[in-house]
Amino acid sequence: MTDVLDFAKRLIAAPSVTPATGAVFDAMEELLVPLGFTVTRFTRGDGETGTPEAPVENLFAIRRGPPGSKHFAFAGHLDVVPPGEGWASGAFEPEIRGDLLYGRGAVDMKGAIACMAAAVADVPEDAGTVSFIITGDEEGPALHGTRALIDWMRDHGEQPDLCLVGEPTSVNRLGDMMKIGRRGSVNIWLEVEGTQGHVAYPHLADNPIPKLVAMLAELDALVLDEGTDWFQPSNLEITDLEVGNTAHNVIPAMAKARISIRFNDTHSGASLSEKVVAIAKKHGGTALPIVSGEPFLTPPGAFSAIIAEAVKAETGVDPEPSTTGGTSDARFLRAVCPVIEFGLVNATMHKRDEAVAVEDLRVLARIYARIVKAALA
Amino acid sequence: MTDVLDFAKRLIAAPSVTPATGAVFDAMEELLVPLGFTVTRFTRGDGETGTPEAPVENLFAIRRGPPGSKHFAFAGHLDVVPPGEGWASGAFEPEIRGDLLYGRGAVDMKGAIACMAAAVADVPEDAGTVSFIITGDEEGPALHGTRALIDWMRDHGEQPDLCLVGEPTSVNRLGDMMKIGRRGSVNIWLEVEGTQGHVAYPHLADNPIPKLVAMLAELDALVLDEGTDWFQPSNLEITDLEVGNTAHNVIPAMAKARISIRFNDTHSGASLSEKVVAIAKKHGGTALPIVSGEPFLTPPGAFSAIIAEAVKAETGVDPEPSTTGGTSDARFLRAVCPVIEFGLVNATMHKRDEAVAVEDLRVLARIYARIVKAALA
Repeated sequence: MTDVLDFAKRLIAAPSVTPATGAVFDAMEELLVPLGFTVTRFTRGDGETGTPEAPVENLFAIRRGPPGSKHFAFAGHLDVVPPGEGWASGAFEPEIRGDLLYGRGAVDMKGAIACMAAAVADVPEDAGTVSFIITGDEEGPALHGTRALIDWMRDHGEQPDLCLVGEPTSVNRLGDMMKIGRRGSVNIWLEVEGTQGHVAYPHLADNPIPKLVAMLAELDALVLDEGTDWFQPSNLEITDLEVGNTAHNVIPAMAKARISIRFNDTHSGASLSEKVVAIAKKHGGTALPIVSGEPFLTPPGAFSAIIAEAVKAETGVDPEPSTTGGTSDARFLRAVCPVIEFGLVNATMHKRDEAVAVEDLRVLARIYARIVKAALA
Repeated sequence: MTDVLDFAKRLIAAPSVTPATGAVFDAMEELLVPLGFTVTRFTRGDGETGTPEAPVENLFAIRRGPPGSKHFAFAGHLDVVPPGEGWASGAFEPEIRGDLLYGRGAVDMKGAIACMAAAVADVPEDAGTVSFIITGDEEGPALHGTRALIDWMRDHGEQPDLCLVGEPTSVNRLGDMMKIGRRGSVNIWLEVEGTQGHVAYPHLADNPIPKLVAMLAELDALVLDEGTDWFQPSNLEITDLEVGNTAHNVIPAMAKARISIRFNDTHSGASLSEKVVAIAKKHGGTALPIVSGEPFLTPPGAFSAIIAEAVKAETGVDPEPSTTGGTSDARFLRAVCPVIEFGLVNATMHKRDEAVAVEDLRVLARIYARIVKAALA
């Protein structure tokens, strides 16, 4: 099989702290073109560096099979989180020590993208259509990343049948977990306004804090659901309280809180927002929800079976179909076609000395090749 | 009657932003010595300016009546709150415009102290013993003020039978209110410690906010009492909330709140502290109480009747015996003898262009003289 290690090193060697543009996409294009892919790259966003409108590069690559053949898509991101301090070697100087390849993005997720490219080198062109949906902004605000790619695909009539996102979903060993869904996420800012006054004359004031406390007590007591076959129960956390009153004898004029809800597919961001807004209003306050992601679920079936069989064949492991953890770009891709996430072991992601087992890269490339072949069959 | 207006001007002209020492006490001594008083002055505190240990001057003056005669004490303070900006005339340059005398302390409470001095000038020396308990720190931390005077009096065997504090208790017109008691005050700092974590993995964290919310809901629902014949119900206000978590996806490690309780004489600072500490503990938190004053009550009786009769005779008004409002040095003097507060109209106290009606000074001096004579009879 094509040298997946060489592919991974070439991607890691191109610094690409989020949002990514330029060199790392050049490296990606240089991997894909020799494999028969037609590559389209475009940049979105025209704001200053450091703002949500900063430029983001995106890449769509496709190798078409015979007319009428199935279309399998790999999705992922070439941007990485900042390396931070204290690495044993350069974060963007890929280095093998022992059995491990070190470098920012080794597992999240340049390593997995290298495996995808190595896998398609092993898939005959006439097996079907394969595409790459690769963004430079998954770790950042993600305003102009995968969403823009989805718009572009819709405008150009590109419609995959299945999509695999290469996020590092394995926990203890390669293959032990795939993500068939993710919870949705909404953050809600709560406020109660009152009338400032002196604690000795409470009848002349209107203390907003007891109203906020009652609101939060009601929100904390909510049972959103009992969970589903595939999702744990939705969960609400109160994440902040703020009054900022330093005077001991003053009743403050304003009290604020923030909550964060991770929710399963029995809810939508809008249904939860409506519920919280009503509770806030009932207690004399207001709520400002910002939905950062809707839940998605690709229920266990043909697609997850393909992945499970490929993993089992290469590792002997039965991957657990899970819906735990944070959000990923699958929250957007769910609108295009069934999507599942499967990738490397995530123990070192976002950490100093991020590293991947060299052998895991080779095994994952073979797993991905099996998945593509089975999906296109 | 001695010119009370001249007395008031002399006191106002000596700047004495809290804590006060020096010139304003010189002025006071110069008023009292010609009236037959023996004056003792002492300073307590050896810290830097601006700290609670900054030096504070105190004055005890006594004019002894015949052996065995009764002892009536006036109490008050010569320090004032800072003048602030924007006065029409100098805050420490007493000026009469229209019917009013302007200057910081005109009503709180150099004006009242001038009335006390003018009053005793009208009381024969053989009527009984009269004393002045005057501090330079009532508006500040009050660590070394009236408390130090009480210690000094105890050490020197000075024991008044009744004490009148000249705080500005009148509300709409001179004489409409006296304070026969004050509520106590305790501020309590509440904390709940948890374990920080990611909102997507709440089982790995321990959110302290719901515990704090439950604690505050229980505290807010407490009915401390229904009030008494002379006191309104004790009142608890939640005055601050603090978490300080800016990350939307982080469960914080600590949540804090502060409450302030104003309480009547069915409680003590210690009994309330114990109650709140127990509730905090029940919810997995801690409580740190700081009692800033115990309640006092001088139930309506002979003393309040003397004051009411004097007020009625000079103004035609029946003073309401009240226990509302903030704390005063009566919280300390209660330990010495029955104490009641009565003084000028408080509308302009602590404000820009603080002013007293010149006629009110003359009337209050006559009221105070009637009170002393009746109390010593």
